[in-house]
Amino acid sequence: MEYTGVGAAGPAASTADKTAADYYFDSYAHHGIHEEMLKDTVRTESYRDAILKNPHLLKDKVVMDVGCGTGILSMFCAQAGAKHVYAMECSAIVEQARKIAAANGFGDKITFIQGKVEEVELPDGVEQIDVIVSEWMGYFLLYESMLNTVIFARDKWLAPDGVILPDKAIMYIAALEDGEYKREKLDFWNNVYGFDMSCIRELALVEPLVDTVDPAAVVTEAFPFKVLDMKTVTVDDLTFSADFALKVTRDDYCHGFVSWFDCEFSSCHKPVAFSTGPDAPYTHWKSTVLYANAGEIMVSTGEIITGTVSVAPNATNPRDLDIALSFEHKGRYQETVETMEYKMR
Amino acid sequence: MEYTGVGAAGPAASTADKTAADYYFDSYAHHGIHEEMLKDTVRTESYRDAILKNPHLLKDKVVMDVGCGTGILSMFCAQAGAKHVYAMECSAIVEQARKIAAANGFGDKITFIQGKVEEVELPDGVEQIDVIVSEWMGYFLLYESMLNTVIFARDKWLAPDGVILPDKAIMYIAALEDGEYKREKLDFWNNVYGFDMSCIRELALVEPLVDTVDPAAVVTEAFPFKVLDMKTVTVDDLTFSADFALKVTRDDYCHGFVSWFDCEFSSCHKPVAFSTGPDAPYTHWKSTVLYANAGEIMVSTGEIITGTVSVAPNATNPRDLDIALSFEHKGRYQETVETMEYKMR
Repeated sequence: MEYTGVGAAGPAASTADKTAADYYFDSYAHHGIHEEMLKDTVRTESYRDAILKNPHLLKDKVVMDVGCGTGILSMFCAQAGAKHVYAMECSAIVEQARKIAAANGFGDKITFIQGKVEEVELPDGVEQIDVIVSEWMGYFLLYESMLNTVIFARDKWLAPDGVILPDKAIMYIAALEDGEYKREKLDFWNNVYGFDMSCIRELALVEPLVDTVDPAAVVTEAFPFKVLDMKTVTVDDLTFSADFALKVTRDDYCHGFVSWFDCEFSSCHKPVAFSTGPDAPYTHWKSTVLYANAGEIMVSTGEIITGTVSVAPNATNPRDLDIALSFEHKGRYQETVETMEYKMR
Repeated sequence: MEYTGVGAAGPAASTADKTAADYYFDSYAHHGIHEEMLKDTVRTESYRDAILKNPHLLKDKVVMDVGCGTGILSMFCAQAGAKHVYAMECSAIVEQARKIAAANGFGDKITFIQGKVEEVELPDGVEQIDVIVSEWMGYFLLYESMLNTVIFARDKWLAPDGVILPDKAIMYIAALEDGEYKREKLDFWNNVYGFDMSCIRELALVEPLVDTVDPAAVVTEAFPFKVLDMKTVTVDDLTFSADFALKVTRDDYCHGFVSWFDCEFSSCHKPVAFSTGPDAPYTHWKSTVLYANAGEIMVSTGEIITGTVSVAPNATNPRDLDIALSFEHKGRYQETVETMEYKMR
């Protein structure tokens, strides 16, 4: 079933005319990013289990899939007995999603709406949704800010006793020993074939690095610095400051911090959850590394690194993130106090 | 030295206003892609050797660096004794290049011009260039079509006896055994968590795949299907058809083709060259794989696979490539004739 929706953002007339927003959505038009997400079995199997193993949540219910991509979650919901699924997707991948749903016999169960959730009305006189399913999480959880759209959908359509899958996210931080890689990524710029390119080091330093982190590199306990409950979170909550205290677990050096998130589907019969942390199996989100400017910070078992992390959407491009991190460490040999301002673009 | 040039494409007023062209250049504004290219030692050391080991080509000469990026090649030229270097760069990375040149004492030797080569005039009354240096090569050599710009610069400014570094490129093709990866990349779409997503397989099939190819996967001799001489190549030459004949070197299966290029700096005292082929050390260009639609094609030693490869810039976005490949194989057990049309986006 096709429905373009009021105010649907159709494809721009020519490549030359597209805007930044179009390019954000168009990056999802290509199958490569969907291949990566689908092959992330931690991600996809968690959603599959949350849906297929909980037919009591889906049966005869009206579902909205926010940012449906290839439509996999919508099809899981249809399989689990949903009465109907409204699958919202801005990027051109929705054309493939329509073909896929039809090829799998879900043509009548899933209505694809190409457009911005904030701009469309639902067809069929539908004004209330029983279940929202969405895979909205970005790097550092909040990069790309798709959560704002989920919040909008919840506030506009979700029934008072409606279900959100997933419904909880927790952001963690820990300190990191990463000297060798920091040299490869940052100090590299100090001497490039004999040339001083350190001005680029300064740019690289303030750019959060998304990469797989070896759990052996983590030198403190993890601290959960932010909890988001999808039932109650507001857009204002996504601009926040949170204090943290990290207990050092071995004598080592600290080069910065690593952040990740856990996700929960707590309304499930048996709660489904997954972690993107260094200790957990690989996910396409990996972890987010924030290097300190300070050099080799000597940390000893039992010492505490305290600090504050502040997160806000960037004023110019709200899908980008400004992350400030200040920390203090009084160690056996030295004291370090530093404030860093990162830009996630 | 700063010079914005006539018609320089300055940064657009806001993120929302940028066009496709701006996004092409902006992808080069971020240091990440420059880090990758600089860390490609095959690439960068080849240029370094071609320049620094050949001062007779550079000393007291006026040089143009087309697409200078961080300015590394311009600085090599200045080091080698160039009289002056005009470094052309459209993306915002040029701001870093200016700082870098200044930090390394080349502020007076290198003039950075932010703008499209096709739109600027050179300052200082300069109308002729002695040397053009450019790292213009893209995936499959021609993806991103920066060669058009080098040709323009050559025709507008290069002295009749001027030097171009590099001056020669050769494109190769061979046949490939790649069954396992083809299944991972293509057949994957036939069954995704039980769903038929084969419409995406059809898209993936016609998209050239840039990846590292194991030399052991190559099942024929390599065939050089296109030679480009930078001194004489025209834009029209970049739309072409070329026949090939591939001699099978072992009994195996063929799943498609692999293409790569070699580059030469033949004006050097001792010619410098590098290959991006499967047999050669890693480069960031990797190789380009073109899968056949046909399944397991049984090839036997000594047999010949003949065909034609046609390349043209895409009409809608000239930086993209349309690649047609038709081939014929009369084997011991079967005959295969196929035409594929790939789109490199």
